[in-house]
Amino acid sequence: MRVFQRETRLRTAGGLTVTDITDEVQEAVDQADVSEGMVLVSAMHITAGVWVNDDEPGILADALEWLDKLAPATWQPPPNDVARELLPDGGDYRHHRGGEDNGDAHLKNLLIGHQVIVPITAGKLDLGPWQQIFYYEFDGRRPKRLVMKAMGE
Amino acid sequence: MRVFQRETRLRTAGGLTVTDITDEVQEAVDQADVSEGMVLVSAMHITAGVWVNDDEPGILADALEWLDKLAPATWQPPPNDVARELLPDGGDYRHHRGGEDNGDAHLKNLLIGHQVIVPITAGKLDLGPWQQIFYYEFDGRRPKRLVMKAMGE
Amino acid sequence: MRVFQRETRLRTAGGLTVTDITDEVQEAVDQADVSEGMVLVSAMHITAGVWVNDDEPGILADALEWLDKLAPATWQPPPNDVARELLPDGGDYRHHRGGEDNGDAHLKNLLIGHQVIVPITAGKLDLGPWQQIFYYEFDGRRPKRLVMKAMGE
Repeated sequence: MRVFQRETRLRTAGGLTVTDITDEVQEAVDQADVSEGMVLVSAMHITAGVWVNDDEPGILADALEWLDKLAPATWQPPPNDVARELLPDGGDYRHHRGGEDNGDAHLKNLLIGHQVIVPITAGKLDLGPWQQIFYYEFDGRRPKRLVMKAMGE
Repeated sequence: MRVFQRETRLRTAGGLTVTDITDEVQEAVDQADVSEGMVLVSAMHITAGVWVNDDEPGILADALEWLDKLAPATWQPPPNDVARELLPDGGDYRHHRGGEDNGDAHLKNLLIGHQVIVPITAGKLDLGPWQQIFYYEFDGRRPKRLVMKAMGE
Repeated sequence: MRVFQRETRLRTAGGLTVTDITDEVQEAVDQADVSEGMVLVSAMHITAGVWVNDDEPGILADALEWLDKLAPATWQPPPNDVARELLPDGGDYRHHRGGEDNGDAHLKNLLIGHQVIVPITAGKLDLGPWQQIFYYEFDGRRPKRLVMKAMGE
């Protein structure tokens, strides 16, 4: 059995960005010398996500805009404020009371998910005909760590 | 250590469909001869998802309708068009400019997620009392590949 | 190769609750005696989720409220009722016709996801600087099973 880990640092501009990391993950699989197994691709930050989809510029732009619609930069608390018992309502994201301004980025992370597992078959990432692996960053600026961990034999 | 992969092809009608694949995954686990481990169940397409939930017709219909509400067939760009820098706005999903009509299916895939990992305990899928594994297809028609990869001992 | 499973039971009050389970998962990793590998953390129930994010009370309250906005307790069927062919429309969640009242909890489960895989490096959970593991419960009351399954060497 083999377990192999490779890390990389991604540095993106501020705001919403998306980066194709498929080649980076394939390199990790090559180094891992795993023929049959799986590779975990995990963003180590709470305002980032990993998504498998098509490398078509329209889809990537659609997805960023849609994420921004479902989890907008400014929050409108609903009339039935279910979180009032946990923390009284402040009119915007509660997370912003401490001086932060990225409350939406945490919810976008929840929608995307921060990790995927890709099967490894015959030493290669086993991806469907249009599947590519993307790193989504919702709050950029600082360098971000990405872990790729392959297991198998 | 054992690694075993089984694939299947699903062919669904057009539109939103949902298929219970629990028995199919259990068969893969039986063949894998893994007693303790995990099985990755991964849709190899970008308009499909895998979800674990209850096999109750009401929930499955609710979920399909709810996915269609959050990611509707036609897109209304918001006033703050955050993706304008990536790709100028076209009034509908940008993905449709190339002649495609399934922009929503890619976003539904994002909500559902395209894979799950199920624990294997004593040679059986370790599922909770109401957990079943479902394959969601948002764009049907063509045959779709599903990978089940078991690892363990 | 080592495969180790630990289970725990969580009993929460009714309604939306969130519990930090990071220490519990680290204990499972300690017991597993796995130095390099992964641990699957999986809710065994269909109205619960597992999410990795920051242990900041504002984020946790924001997330619960936001989940309740996207998947509200009462459903308003859209004019284009796409699920009508699967199951005729009833005005509220179809799941409620059988006497249940937690239709929204199943959709919140879909948003959060019911599992994560955390890398294990040098015998410890490999988490980013602000990453903690949380169990979200959307329908509480009954005791809920959580499975932690570590694999590696």
